[in-house]
Amino acid sequence: MTKQRGIKIAVIGGGSSYTPELVEGLILGYGEMPVSELWLADIEEGGQKLETVGNLAKRMVKKSGLPIDVHLTLDRRQAIRGADFVTTQIRVGLLAARKLDEHIPLSHGVIGQETTGPGGMFKALRTIPVILGICRDIEELAPDAWMLNFTNPAGMVTEAVTKYSRVKNVGLCNSPINFKKFLAEAYETPESRVLPEFVGINHLHWMTSALVDGKDRLPELLEGKGEYTAKNVPTLGWDPEFLSSLGAVPTYYLKYYYMTEEMLEEEKAALAKGGTRAEVVSRVEKELFELYADETLEEKPKQLEQRGGAYYSEAAVQLMKSLYLGKNDIQTLNVPNGGIYDFLPRDASIEINCVVTAEGPIPLAPKRIPRQVKGLLHAVKTYESLAIEAAVTGDRGTALQAMVHHPLVPSVSTAQALLNEMLEAHKDYLPNFLA
Amino acid sequence: MTKQRGIKIAVIGGGSSYTPELVEGLILGYGEMPVSELWLADIEEGGQKLETVGNLAKRMVKKSGLPIDVHLTLDRRQAIRGADFVTTQIRVGLLAARKLDEHIPLSHGVIGQETTGPGGMFKALRTIPVILGICRDIEELAPDAWMLNFTNPAGMVTEAVTKYSRVKNVGLCNSPINFKKFLAEAYETPESRVLPEFVGINHLHWMTSALVDGKDRLPELLEGKGEYTAKNVPTLGWDPEFLSSLGAVPTYYLKYYYMTEEMLEEEKAALAKGGTRAEVVSRVEKELFELYADETLEEKPKQLEQRGGAYYSEAAVQLMKSLYLGKNDIQTLNVPNGGIYDFLPRDASIEINCVVTAEGPIPLAPKRIPRQVKGLLHAVKTYESLAIEAAVTGDRGTALQAMVHHPLVPSVSTAQALLNEMLEAHKDYLPNFLA
Amino acid sequence: MTKQRGIKIAVIGGGSSYTPELVEGLILGYGEMPVSELWLADIEEGGQKLETVGNLAKRMVKKSGLPIDVHLTLDRRQAIRGADFVTTQIRVGLLAARKLDEHIPLSHGVIGQETTGPGGMFKALRTIPVILGICRDIEELAPDAWMLNFTNPAGMVTEAVTKYSRVKNVGLCNSPINFKKFLAEAYETPESRVLPEFVGINHLHWMTSALVDGKDRLPELLEGKGEYTAKNVPTLGWDPEFLSSLGAVPTYYLKYYYMTEEMLEEEKAALAKGGTRAEVVSRVEKELFELYADETLEEKPKQLEQRGGAYYSEAAVQLMKSLYLGKNDIQTLNVPNGGIYDFLPRDASIEINCVVTAEGPIPLAPKRIPRQVKGLLHAVKTYESLAIEAAVTGDRGTALQAMVHHPLVPSVSTAQALLNEMLEAHKDYLPNFLA
Amino acid sequence: MTKQRGIKIAVIGGGSSYTPELVEGLILGYGEMPVSELWLADIEEGGQKLETVGNLAKRMVKKSGLPIDVHLTLDRRQAIRGADFVTTQIRVGLLAARKLDEHIPLSHGVIGQETTGPGGMFKALRTIPVILGICRDIEELAPDAWMLNFTNPAGMVTEAVTKYSRVKNVGLCNSPINFKKFLAEAYETPESRVLPEFVGINHLHWMTSALVDGKDRLPELLEGKGEYTAKNVPTLGWDPEFLSSLGAVPTYYLKYYYMTEEMLEEEKAALAKGGTRAEVVSRVEKELFELYADETLEEKPKQLEQRGGAYYSEAAVQLMKSLYLGKNDIQTLNVPNGGIYDFLPRDASIEINCVVTAEGPIPLAPKRIPRQVKGLLHAVKTYESLAIEAAVTGDRGTALQAMVHHPLVPSVSTAQALLNEMLEAHKDYLPNFLA
Repeated sequence: MTKQRGIKIAVIGGGSSYTPELVEGLILGYGEMPVSELWLADIEEGGQKLETVGNLAKRMVKKSGLPIDVHLTLDRRQAIRGADFVTTQIRVGLLAARKLDEHIPLSHGVIGQETTGPGGMFKALRTIPVILGICRDIEELAPDAWMLNFTNPAGMVTEAVTKYSRVKNVGLCNSPINFKKFLAEAYETPESRVLPEFVGINHLHWMTSALVDGKDRLPELLEGKGEYTAKNVPTLGWDPEFLSSLGAVPTYYLKYYYMTEEMLEEEKAALAKGGTRAEVVSRVEKELFELYADETLEEKPKQLEQRGGAYYSEAAVQLMKSLYLGKNDIQTLNVPNGGIYDFLPRDASIEINCVVTAEGPIPLAPKRIPRQVKGLLHAVKTYESLAIEAAVTGDRGTALQAMVHHPLVPSVSTAQALLNEMLEAHKDYLPNFLA
Repeated sequence: MTKQRGIKIAVIGGGSSYTPELVEGLILGYGEMPVSELWLADIEEGGQKLETVGNLAKRMVKKSGLPIDVHLTLDRRQAIRGADFVTTQIRVGLLAARKLDEHIPLSHGVIGQETTGPGGMFKALRTIPVILGICRDIEELAPDAWMLNFTNPAGMVTEAVTKYSRVKNVGLCNSPINFKKFLAEAYETPESRVLPEFVGINHLHWMTSALVDGKDRLPELLEGKGEYTAKNVPTLGWDPEFLSSLGAVPTYYLKYYYMTEEMLEEEKAALAKGGTRAEVVSRVEKELFELYADETLEEKPKQLEQRGGAYYSEAAVQLMKSLYLGKNDIQTLNVPNGGIYDFLPRDASIEINCVVTAEGPIPLAPKRIPRQVKGLLHAVKTYESLAIEAAVTGDRGTALQAMVHHPLVPSVSTAQALLNEMLEAHKDYLPNFLA
Repeated sequence: MTKQRGIKIAVIGGGSSYTPELVEGLILGYGEMPVSELWLADIEEGGQKLETVGNLAKRMVKKSGLPIDVHLTLDRRQAIRGADFVTTQIRVGLLAARKLDEHIPLSHGVIGQETTGPGGMFKALRTIPVILGICRDIEELAPDAWMLNFTNPAGMVTEAVTKYSRVKNVGLCNSPINFKKFLAEAYETPESRVLPEFVGINHLHWMTSALVDGKDRLPELLEGKGEYTAKNVPTLGWDPEFLSSLGAVPTYYLKYYYMTEEMLEEEKAALAKGGTRAEVVSRVEKELFELYADETLEEKPKQLEQRGGAYYSEAAVQLMKSLYLGKNDIQTLNVPNGGIYDFLPRDASIEINCVVTAEGPIPLAPKRIPRQVKGLLHAVKTYESLAIEAAVTGDRGTALQAMVHHPLVPSVSTAQALLNEMLEAHKDYLPNFLA
Repeated sequence: MTKQRGIKIAVIGGGSSYTPELVEGLILGYGEMPVSELWLADIEEGGQKLETVGNLAKRMVKKSGLPIDVHLTLDRRQAIRGADFVTTQIRVGLLAARKLDEHIPLSHGVIGQETTGPGGMFKALRTIPVILGICRDIEELAPDAWMLNFTNPAGMVTEAVTKYSRVKNVGLCNSPINFKKFLAEAYETPESRVLPEFVGINHLHWMTSALVDGKDRLPELLEGKGEYTAKNVPTLGWDPEFLSSLGAVPTYYLKYYYMTEEMLEEEKAALAKGGTRAEVVSRVEKELFELYADETLEEKPKQLEQRGGAYYSEAAVQLMKSLYLGKNDIQTLNVPNGGIYDFLPRDASIEINCVVTAEGPIPLAPKRIPRQVKGLLHAVKTYESLAIEAAVTGDRGTALQAMVHHPLVPSVSTAQALLNEMLEAHKDYLPNFLA
C-alpha cells in the first residue's frame, strides 16, 4: 500500500467526542504513516458537534506543525472518495436511542445494555443498514480502502459488512488492548513482550493464555493471587472456584452472562439513582464538548479518558499502520471465522489474534478452546446471525427468532413483549421494518 | 443374530411399574421374536415391588400359553449372564431423590424437573456410575448383548455408556413414537406411511418435517389450523408467530426453554398445591402396585397408561425385533453423533432417525437443521458432556462448570448455591464426590 | 406422490438397446406402480433405432395386456411435459465417440476407458451440456419430476445436475445391485436379507461390510476362501495380501487404479486383436437390433444380458417404486455428499446406501471408511469437479487442470498432448470449447 | 525461555558435513542468543567424521573468541541431558542406504528419490524408529527442550514425533527460506518485507501468494515474464498454461508428480552416467571432509554451499532465536495441521507459515487453497500416515497399503515387488519388520 501522495482518512461520525484521541494518534504516528488528509464527516443533526470537535482537531494539527489537512463535511461521499482508510464511529439515534435500549429491557426484568441483550440487538437493527449504506459509497468511491469499524455492536456490524458488501473491513474493540496493557504493567515488561490469547467473539471473550516474556502467566492469574491491586485486574469479582475450573479469564462483558442477577440488580439500582449508562455518558459528553469548545485548547483533554473506550485510538492507529506498512505484527481483531471455530459458520465474525499483513489480517487459531464455552459462544453467535439478517431484511419473524434465542431473554412471551415495545420505540430508525 | 435357542432378556430395574407393558409387548411380539427367558432383576430395596410385579408377569405369561420362563432375582449378574438384550429402567435414589431434584431448584427460582435443568443434572450424577457398573457386568458376562437404555436422562446415560464402556447400546425415549402415532391418527394412515424427521438430542428435540403418505405436512402443522382437537396436538400452546418463524415443531420439553417463566409458575403452583411430579407419580405408583398385587390380574391394567411413558414398551420391543431380525426399518433413537451435526462432538449422543440393522442403528442425517436452534442445542450438549464427566470423575469444579453453563441456570452464584445444596442432599448416592 | 391418473415416464435416449429391459421392468412392476404413459424420445440420428426398439416395446406391452400407452417421439419436450419420471440413457457422439475415448489415451500409454481416465473426462465434457439442456426442459415442463440418470459417467453427470439445475435427481449404477445379488446367491438368502455397505463414488467404490442375515461376511470374503466358484466373485484377481490389509473389497473399476499396468496390457492386447470395448459393443448392438426388428418378438431377448448393464432396469424400477410409494427401503445411489465425507465438498456426488423416501433418498453414513482410500477418493473427486466445471464453462485451463490431476495421467506434458488431440477429435460435440 | 545460564544445544548427527553451517550461524547469532554449550553427538560408525568436523567447529569457535564450549560425544544421552534445543540431522544407513532408495525404484520404472516415492518411504521406515528412540531420551533427560528436525523425510519424521512422543518439536526445510530469498533479491527489498504464502506439506508445496512490500507479485510470477534471469527462478521449466491455470507456483519436488516422465528419464540418464544423487553427494562429502581436516581451516568453507541444503543453518538459527526470544515473527515450518486443512487429520504434519512464539509456532491459515491440489495433497498424506504407522508397527500389510497408495507407484504388483526387494535390501535397518 506504499503510495506517492500521503494518506487520506475518512472518519464517519467525525463529530464524536472520541475524535481528539484519533487525531492525537495520527499526529504521534505521522513518522511511520504520513497522513495528508483527514476528513471528518457527520450528519446534519451532528453538525454542531462536528464543528466544535473539528475545530479542536484543526488546532491540534496546527500545533503539531504537520502538513495534515483537516476537512469537515456533512457529505460523507466527499470524505470517502479516494480514501485509504474509512473509520466509522456512529450512533444511529444518538444517546436517546441508547437510553431506550437500556431502559426498556430493564422494565421487563432483562439486562439493558448497549451491546449485549435486547439493547444490543436493537442497536444492531438500527446501525447495520446505515453502515451498509456507507459500504455502498466505499464500494463506489474508494474500493481499495480499508474500513475500520469502531461502531458497536462491532462484531455484528463487521459480520454484516462481510456478508453484505465487498468492502475490505476489520472490526475493532479496545478490550484486548487493555488486557495487553494490564499484563505489561503488572509484569513490568514492554507490551511487545506480552501476548494474551483470546477465544470468542466481540464482547463474549475469554483469555486462555497470557504469554509474558515467553511464560504463560494464566495459571497465576486464575489463582487470583491478589498481588495486583490495580483497578484493572481482570479476575476481580469472579468466583475463584468458577475461575479455576473454567481455566480461562472471562472478559468484562461476560458478567452479563455469568453474573446476570448481580448485573441486573446493579443496573436497576443505577436506574433508580441517576439513570443507566446512557445518562452518565450524556453528562460526560456535555462536559467534554464544553471543554472542546474552548478555543485555547490545542490537545486532547485528560477528561476524555473517563469517557470509556480508552486506547481505542491507539488500537486504530496501530491497525492502520500495520495495514499500511505490512508490519506482520499481532493484533486482536474482528474478522471472519474461516475455519478457526469448526462449530461456527465460516463467515461469522470472531475476535481473535491476527497477524496484520499489508493484505489484511490473518487469524491465529487459538491453541486451546475451553469446551465449557463452546455452547454459549454458539448460542450468542446464533442470535447474532439472526439479528443481522433481521436488520437487513426487516423481517419480524427473524427478529423474533433472534430475540427468543438470545441466552439472556427468558421466554418467547418476554421476547414478544420486548420486540413489540422496542420496534415501536425505535421505529424512526428502523425503516426496513415498516414495509 | 439368528440363534438356535430362544432369546434371553434381562431387565435391570425389573420391579418397575412399567414392567407389565414390556411383558405384554414381548408376548405380542413372540411370533417374530421368540423370547425364552425373561429375567427381572432389582436391588434389595426394590425386592417387594419386584415380587409383586414379577408375579403379575408370570401370570401374564402363563395366560399367554407361551414357553417364556420368567425369573426374578436380586443378583443382576445372573440376569445379565448370556443375555441377548439388557434393558435398564432404574431410578437411583427412588422417588425421594426425584422429589429433591424437583424441589431444590424451584426454591432457587430455577426449573425443577427430572431430566432438564439442575434436577436432570443430579439425576445424571447419581445414575451414570450405577449404569457403568452394569456395563462392567455386561462386558464380562454378555459381551454381545445389546443394552437398551430407558433410564433417564436417557441421552446423557447413553452418551456415558458410549464414552466409558464397550457395550453395544442404544437409548430410547417414547416422545418420537408418540409423534408418529399422532400423525398417523390425525391423517388416518398407517404408522408405516408416516415419517417425521427430528433434529436434536434427547428431550431437546424439534420436528422438522412430517412426511405422511409421501407429503410433508409440516407447513400446515406450523399454521396450527386447529383441525386436530386431540389432546396430543404438539403445536398447542406455542405462540403462532414463533412457531411459523421457527419453521419446526418444538417437542414438549422445549417448553422449559422457550416458556421458562410460564413453566416455572406452573411448577410453583403445583408445588403449592399437591407437590411436583414426584408426588403425583408416587401416588400413581402406589395405586398401580395395589392393582398388580391382585392375584386375579393376568394382564396389563389400563391405569398403567396414565403413568406416563406411553408406548415405551412398544418402542422397546420394536427396537429389539429390528436388531434381532435386521429389519432395516426407521426408528428414532439415541445414538452417537458421528458426523451428523458438525458442531457437536462425534461421541455426543443425539436423538435421530436411524435405520436399524442387525449390526445396530445407522443414523439418517436430517435434511434441514433450523439454524436458530444450533446454539441452544450446542449449549445444552456442552452442559451434558460436562455433567457426564463430573458424574464419572466426581470432580466438583467440572460439576460447577456444568451447572453454570446450563442455559436455565441464571448465574455462577445460583449455580454455587444449587450445587452445594444438592450435593449435600444427594450425598448418599454420589460416592464419587466424597473423595 | 400418490396420484389420480397413472404415471408418466419419459425416457431420453429411448432408442437405446437397453429399453426392452426397462419396459419389462415396468410391466412386472405395474401392480405397485401403474404406469399409464411411457414416452421414448430420441434425436434424429437415432430415429431408426427408436422406431425398431419402440415397436418392440409396443409389442411387449400389448402382450402384457396392460393399459400403458407407449409413445415414440423426436421431440423430447413433448416427452418431458408433465412427466413423473425422466430417465436419461444417452450417448453423445454415439459409439464413434466412445471409440475415440478408448483409443486416443491408449496411444499415449494411458488407460482408455469410457468412464475412467481421459476417456471418461471427454465423455463428461460432451454429455454434461446436453444433460443440462434436458434439465432446462424439466425445470420448465415437469418441475416436480424425478430425473434418474443412467447416463455415464453417472457420478459426474449427477453432480453437474445438482450443481447447475434445480431438478430433483438421482444417479444410478448397476454395480451395487450386482454385489447384492452375488451375496444373496452365494449365501442362499433373499436379497432383502443382504446389506452390503459401500464407500466411495461412482466407479470408485469399495465394499466395506457385507451383512447377510445379520452377520458381516466381509472377513471371509477378504480371505477369499475360494468356496464361491461363480464368475461374479468380486475378490477374484486381487492380490490376497493387498485385499486383507485393505480390509475392503474394491469394486471392478478400481482395477484401473490398482492394476493399471495389467489393465493397460489387456486393453492394448484387445485393441491389437479386435478393438476395444467400443467395437465389441458395436457388434453386440448390431445383433440386438436385428433381433428387435423381428416383428414376432414380444419380449426382452436373452442376448440383451450380454450387453452389460445387467439389472440396470431392475435398479431403475426399484428406485421409481420407492420414490413413488415412499417405501423407505435401502438402495445404493448417487446423491450429494452433504456431510457424509468430511473431506469432500458438500455438493460432490457420492455413491452410497440411501433410504429412499417419497421426498428422495437420505444417505446412510458408512460405519467405517478405510483411511487408505481417502486420498485416492479425494484425488479422483478433485479431478471430477474440475472436469464438470470445464464441461460447463468450456475453459481450456480448467480442462487441463482436470486432466493433470487425474491419478491415471502421468504428467503435464501427457495431459497437454491428450487434451489437444481429444479436443480436436471431439470438437463437434464440444461447442462450449469453441469460443 | 529467558534463562540465567547460557543455552545448551545438542546436535544429533553432529558429524554431518552440514555442521559447520550451523556453527557459523550460532556464532553470528550469539548476540541475541548466547549459546554456552554445543554438543555434537554421533554414532560409532560416524566417530571419525565427528572428530574431523568437531575439531573444525572448535577452531571456528576459538577464532570467534566467544565463550561457547564445544563437546564431541558418542553418547547422545550426555548431549541431550538438560539441553534447550536438540537438532537432528541423521542418516540411518548412511549414503549406502540412500543409493538403494534411489536405485531400486528406478529399476522398476518408478521415481527413485530420497524423500519422494518408495525411496522416501524406506528412508522413513529406517529413520522414524531411531528418531523416536531419541525422543525417549529427550522426554527423560530434557523434557522442556525443543527438538528441531532437519532429518528427512522431515514432514513424516515430524508427524511421527507428534504422534508417538511428548517432545515439543518442529520440522524444518530450507525450501521456503530459499523462496523468500529469491523474492527479496528479485524485487530488491529486504527479506522482512517479503511474505510468500505456502500451501501443502513438506516437499509437496505450492506458493499461493507472494507479498512483496505489501503487493502480491504472484500474478506476474505465474506469467513468467522472464525478467528474472537468476538460476533460482522457481517458475522455470513449468508449462506456462499449466502454471497460469493452476494459479500457484509448485515448488521443486512437485516435478516428481507433475513431470514424472521427464524426471524419470533424467534419473535414468544420470544413473547411466555417473550414478544418482547418492553418488554425487558421496563425492561432494569426501571432498568436504578433506577440507575440514585441514587444521588451518577456521571457517565454513565456501564449497559447503554446493552440498545442497543452502540456508538450512540460517533457518535453524532463526527458529531457535524466535523460540528463545518469543519473537512472534513468521517462519515456514512443519507443524501439526490442527484445523488448517479440514480434509486432513488434525495430527498430520503440514508445512506452513507460522508465528513463532516462545511457546511454539502458531500456524497461519492460508487465505486460499487451490482446489486442484487438494486431492494430490490428501493422497500423499494418506500414504505418509500409512508409512509412519508401518515404521512404528513393522506391519507388512500396512507398508503394502502405503506403497500401493503412493501416487507414484503404478500398481499393486509393482508395489509388492518393490516392497519385497527393499525390505530385503534394508533389513539391517528395519528391526521392526523382523518379528
